[in-house]
Amino acid sequence: MKTIVCSVRVVAAAPGLHDNTADLDRLQQVVLQALDDRRSLVIPYRCMTSVARDFRAAGFAGFALLNNLEQGWELVGFSKEKPSIIAAMALDLGTTHLEATLLDLQTGETLSDGNLENAQITFGADILSRIHYATTKRRQQKPLAADFQDPGLDELQQVVIAAINELAAIVAARADIDPKDIRALSVSGNTTMAHLFLGLDPYHICREPYIPLFNRIQPIHGEQVGLVIAPLAPVWVMPSVGSYFGGDLISGILASGMAHSAKTRMLIDVGTNAEVVLGNSEWLIACAGAAGPALEGGVARMGMRAGSGAIEYVSIDPETYEIRFRTIGDVAAKGICGSGLIDLVAALYLTQMIDIRGKFRDSATEQDSSRAAFMKEHFVTRDDGLCFVLTGGKSGEEEDVVLEQIDLDAMIRSKAAMYAILTTLINQVGLEFSDLEEIIVAGAFGRHINPQNAITLGMLPDLPLSVYRAIGNSSLRGAEKVLLDDRARLECEKIVSSITYLELNVNQEFMIRFSGARFIPHTDPSLFPSVPLFGCIEK
Amino acid sequence: MKTIVCSVRVVAAAPGLHDNTADLDRLQQVVLQALDDRRSLVIPYRCMTSVARDFRAAGFAGFALLNNLEQGWELVGFSKEKPSIIAAMALDLGTTHLEATLLDLQTGETLSDGNLENAQITFGADILSRIHYATTKRRQQKPLAADFQDPGLDELQQVVIAAINELAAIVAARADIDPKDIRALSVSGNTTMAHLFLGLDPYHICREPYIPLFNRIQPIHGEQVGLVIAPLAPVWVMPSVGSYFGGDLISGILASGMAHSAKTRMLIDVGTNAEVVLGNSEWLIACAGAAGPALEGGVARMGMRAGSGAIEYVSIDPETYEIRFRTIGDVAAKGICGSGLIDLVAALYLTQMIDIRGKFRDSATEQDSSRAAFMKEHFVTRDDGLCFVLTGGKSGEEEDVVLEQIDLDAMIRSKAAMYAILTTLINQVGLEFSDLEEIIVAGAFGRHINPQNAITLGMLPDLPLSVYRAIGNSSLRGAEKVLLDDRARLECEKIVSSITYLELNVNQEFMIRFSGARFIPHTDPSLFPSVPLFGCIEK
Repeated sequence: MKTIVCSVRVVAAAPGLHDNTADLDRLQQVVLQALDDRRSLVIPYRCMTSVARDFRAAGFAGFALLNNLEQGWELVGFSKEKPSIIAAMALDLGTTHLEATLLDLQTGETLSDGNLENAQITFGADILSRIHYATTKRRQQKPLAADFQDPGLDELQQVVIAAINELAAIVAARADIDPKDIRALSVSGNTTMAHLFLGLDPYHICREPYIPLFNRIQPIHGEQVGLVIAPLAPVWVMPSVGSYFGGDLISGILASGMAHSAKTRMLIDVGTNAEVVLGNSEWLIACAGAAGPALEGGVARMGMRAGSGAIEYVSIDPETYEIRFRTIGDVAAKGICGSGLIDLVAALYLTQMIDIRGKFRDSATEQDSSRAAFMKEHFVTRDDGLCFVLTGGKSGEEEDVVLEQIDLDAMIRSKAAMYAILTTLINQVGLEFSDLEEIIVAGAFGRHINPQNAITLGMLPDLPLSVYRAIGNSSLRGAEKVLLDDRARLECEKIVSSITYLELNVNQEFMIRFSGARFIPHTDPSLFPSVPLFGCIEK
Repeated sequence: MKTIVCSVRVVAAAPGLHDNTADLDRLQQVVLQALDDRRSLVIPYRCMTSVARDFRAAGFAGFALLNNLEQGWELVGFSKEKPSIIAAMALDLGTTHLEATLLDLQTGETLSDGNLENAQITFGADILSRIHYATTKRRQQKPLAADFQDPGLDELQQVVIAAINELAAIVAARADIDPKDIRALSVSGNTTMAHLFLGLDPYHICREPYIPLFNRIQPIHGEQVGLVIAPLAPVWVMPSVGSYFGGDLISGILASGMAHSAKTRMLIDVGTNAEVVLGNSEWLIACAGAAGPALEGGVARMGMRAGSGAIEYVSIDPETYEIRFRTIGDVAAKGICGSGLIDLVAALYLTQMIDIRGKFRDSATEQDSSRAAFMKEHFVTRDDGLCFVLTGGKSGEEEDVVLEQIDLDAMIRSKAAMYAILTTLINQVGLEFSDLEEIIVAGAFGRHINPQNAITLGMLPDLPLSVYRAIGNSSLRGAEKVLLDDRARLECEKIVSSITYLELNVNQEFMIRFSGARFIPHTDPSLFPSVPLFGCIEK
């Protein structure tokens, strides 16, 4: 029995005048015999009445429902019949989005899934503004009263708990069960989200020396934070390494399997930050940097997350200059997401409509007639200067999807940051990119991007495409793993303790590498032999 | 550190850019180092915010407050200064009375004490009527709904919790502390009281085959049952052996020390029942019987518990027939308690005013003139027949304290039951009373009785008085022990598992011995060589 909740069949002797063992003592005896693993067993006070009643009603034989926790077993239910399913919810608690799957722990099958916007967004789009909101009152009251509770923190906790409850109701309805029958929850989120979820003070997370209130927490029960799932459902919160290295990334490392193998792998997860981990079963080194926003659609005016209506794929034929694009869900284009942006900028570079600095070329000096015609159709001058109209007249939307020079500049900065992060990290351990067994790209970003175009831009190293593997929402996949296998929970502890964190904010090498990477594909084109070179680099 | 709550001094390194361990992880590390006993340590979710805040406010050095539980340590508080006291309350949760002491766990000193009537009395004087009240609704609803809650049970729980809260407020006020500063509670009560205290279904306790819902329970936290002491105060409930052998008696065995010594001892505890334990460190055998009510003042019309105004001592001079008595608190007599009753009946026997059957003699046929005069003054005939007026005209009370023939008869039955219990038990193990190292008499009964008078009546065996030792409220003394020493808690487990229970209700030998003991001192006077014999026994 490895799942976080499981059932075990027991048959107890019926009580009699010569065997007057108390009901719950009797139950504990047979369950301990059935488990036979020397771990302790408790029946939480909260459920003693119902467990004892159900045990009697079942005629002292049936199935005990057990929470399988590190500190021992908790007996939380009893039924005459074997449970048809034991449902548990895995949750990726993102700063902007919540994504969940509902699993049946008895079969490992996914029963349903769902996602929802993080309702905390109204209180601040990013982590810093949420921490600010959570602790505003505190800053007005110093020294703090002994019983001071941050009203902002309480509010943010209630908002996220309500959102999780809503998502639990959605996935439960889709699986045709009651949310109260969700028997366990795993939560994978960054350090700040974990603090806000538990209502624990995030004040010092964003203040030097950046100390969280906690990194590891014993599982709590659902009712302790007001969740509407089973009251005694264990809530496992993924451990974090520090203020800027959260449980979501631990979850990703777990899901990637990189800590299992002797071969060295790299994991790239692009969210609000780009977070990168390098290593194997012996060692892990990680760092994070602000390479994300442009890639996640957070910067460009028409940028958006990879969701319905986002342009996720763009190509421009280098011969005919025919432009093609595809939106997620095949609906009218509402904007462009990270992968679409990468495709578009790569295509603009390969068709020589932007230069190696990522600047729009001047159509007036264009000598190729078909390119000149294309540029005439798609380049317009607005108040902010020259811009590229991607969906002019075709989208059916009020506003066209356009790319401005400032969007291009942001994109170049992001891709430069990404490449600088990767090279700084691999250099740190004395390896080359070619030494890597695999580069695992996580998240919506990983699912949608075309690695060849990312290589063309000089964002990802110039390696055979077979080296790249997309694993989707690795934070959620890891959260699923800990529900299904208690060894995965132990592995999280091992991962946390074996990680070395490389701080880039004060890293000179990173700054130099960042400057060198602000060209397409790079100041040193020999690093990207597969990418055609147009124009020379002015050093 | 053996006390159930203790403090330990720790000094942690201050966090910095090169040591970004989270606050609570940092605290746990230094506390685990200080404890150095391989047991697990958790910080309950409930107190994480306050502990982290106090740890920071103290500059990462000070005193951690810890619950010392079997399953591991719980860190529940932090302070810069060493706590001046760590208060804990020991509670004897009796069916009729609550008695408590407040201890300082740092010194072992008693800070204050107090007692209170068990407010559940309005719902039934005895255990059976309480169980009936708690489960009345249940009997009207069969089969029970899955979420059925007995309203009567809830009510009884609330009433006793309110009483405990009141008593906690009393002892706290007397020690000049806040009840919230009571950091632990131990509860010693019979099996039914333990169920009612926890709101757990007592329905099957009084129904064959008499199975409690639980005998042992892991410590819970004060807030889980609505106590107004520290929310995370561990509440240790003494384990019981069965429906009719409760934690109060386990507590008594613990307090007596009998399970520690190779020498065999007997423990007699008279409450609503007389409960008797025989044994040593190797074995323990116990039984209980209805010998109590008359001795505890529960039967005689003027009977009362040993409290203020109770006549606790009576003597009649065999020469002058002068009668003397003393009340508890030296106030006007309100009634007579068990010890006074034993003294009075023994005196009436020794002055030959009752016969060996416990019947009032006929004053009309009395030949001794001074005895005749005394009888004329004190014997009156009322509707119910002849009775003895103890305080006629002296008490200052409206009603005299009188002893009726039915009171005498009840007394004889009780003393016969007591002696029959003791002889059946000692015979069971093939020993004689003379083999006993000690006879320990617990409770108010033990504190007040004159063993010589109990021997005269044939209630207690005719042994040198030095064999008898009174230990007061042993249930409360045991409850104190478990607060002060964790080994005592382990010893409770050992006691529970080593006890053999002898059922007297179906015991033929007991019934025969009971009949033989219904004379003063006994059908076989050779068993009581020290007692003068008046008249012969008609077999």
